[in-house]
Amino acid sequence: MLLSGGMDSATCLAIATRRHPPVHALTVLYGQRHAREVRSARALARHYEVARHTVLRLPLAPLLASALTDAHRPLPSGRHRADRIPSTYVPARNTILLSIALGYAESHGLGTIYLGANAIDYSGYPDCRPEYLRAFERLARLATRAGVEQGKCVRIEAPLLRRSKAEIVRLGERLGVPWRLTWSCYAGGSAPCGKCDACRLRALGFSVAGVRDPGRRAAN
Amino acid sequence: MLLSGGMDSATCLAIATRRHPPVHALTVLYGQRHAREVRSARALARHYEVARHTVLRLPLAPLLASALTDAHRPLPSGRHRADRIPSTYVPARNTILLSIALGYAESHGLGTIYLGANAIDYSGYPDCRPEYLRAFERLARLATRAGVEQGKCVRIEAPLLRRSKAEIVRLGERLGVPWRLTWSCYAGGSAPCGKCDACRLRALGFSVAGVRDPGRRAAN
Repeated sequence: MLLSGGMDSATCLAIATRRHPPVHALTVLYGQRHAREVRSARALARHYEVARHTVLRLPLAPLLASALTDAHRPLPSGRHRADRIPSTYVPARNTILLSIALGYAESHGLGTIYLGANAIDYSGYPDCRPEYLRAFERLARLATRAGVEQGKCVRIEAPLLRRSKAEIVRLGERLGVPWRLTWSCYAGGSAPCGKCDACRLRALGFSVAGVRDPGRRAAN
Repeated sequence: MLLSGGMDSATCLAIATRRHPPVHALTVLYGQRHAREVRSARALARHYEVARHTVLRLPLAPLLASALTDAHRPLPSGRHRADRIPSTYVPARNTILLSIALGYAESHGLGTIYLGANAIDYSGYPDCRPEYLRAFERLARLATRAGVEQGKCVRIEAPLLRRSKAEIVRLGERLGVPWRLTWSCYAGGSAPCGKCDACRLRALGFSVAGVRDPGRRAAN
């Protein structure tokens, strides 16, 4: 499972550990300014007792143009236009993450890659859409030894893909997800900024679900 | 362009610098035992005066099971069965390399990714086949901002895909490729081993083309 430290990741990990144990977790630091989330990822991996947790540091920030990897660029804080991809989009991020997870899965004989991608209350990223994930799954069948020699394919599971943030909060509540361990804010501070897209979507989800966010309290 | 230090890469770079200047070159060290090829990549990038050459070190060797990233596993040295993928196959390698190149290309507004993949006298890798590369191109259209907002797509160019090694040698001769700067051997020694798949394919190419290999002489 591709594990960031966010609430979608945490809920996805809760699902993956029930459906497909043992789970190997992979956290990739690709130069994002909110590297704080790796602490949350470690805490979640411990909480769910994953079989193995790998934190991979990739020096990609100088190559990838994004407000998420460049502290000199402002983060968007207003409601962005639904037809525009925001500046926090990291070019090819999910393709990079999924390809590394694919190599890992094939190397370890694991048949399924879980990720917490979400296409409803999401940030408008092209690589969080169902059609993108289906295309990656087709690619995986052509790219790998298992696909070619045995017609087997590493499956991509994104169980939160079509759920709203509020539905994710309700589902996480039922599964007992430890929200206090999660981290959403993009800004890279020691407490959530409350203004960036990630903070706003998180607040919206908890508010609509009528659940108090224990992660938010930590910020105040 | 994804630039290793091999003869296919060198020939592909000669083509790319003619067709699509300025060329940005990207060399990825993913833990391969033949890291010697990075010296060749640097020499080739200088020779062809690329606009920018990036050498990226990714700590992937512990994640990816392959004889190419694990010095404790033997390299195949005989003629391998054509219907089997050899142990030097690195799971998802080209997907990882292409996804990073895709993020780089989109970040820098570059429209084409060149790579020296070859599906004729090749090593049986699934991710060197035409159908794989077409699938990656389709994925790129769905994965990127340019694909979604403008219907534009980063193109994948593999001009050597359907050429035999001997044809590549003849083409490289016509283009003046400096073979002495290239490196093929997988084994990781200071001179080519002459026995691994890469050495054998190289020797076969030069022999059939009737060209003396100045890189081989350096080994003796």
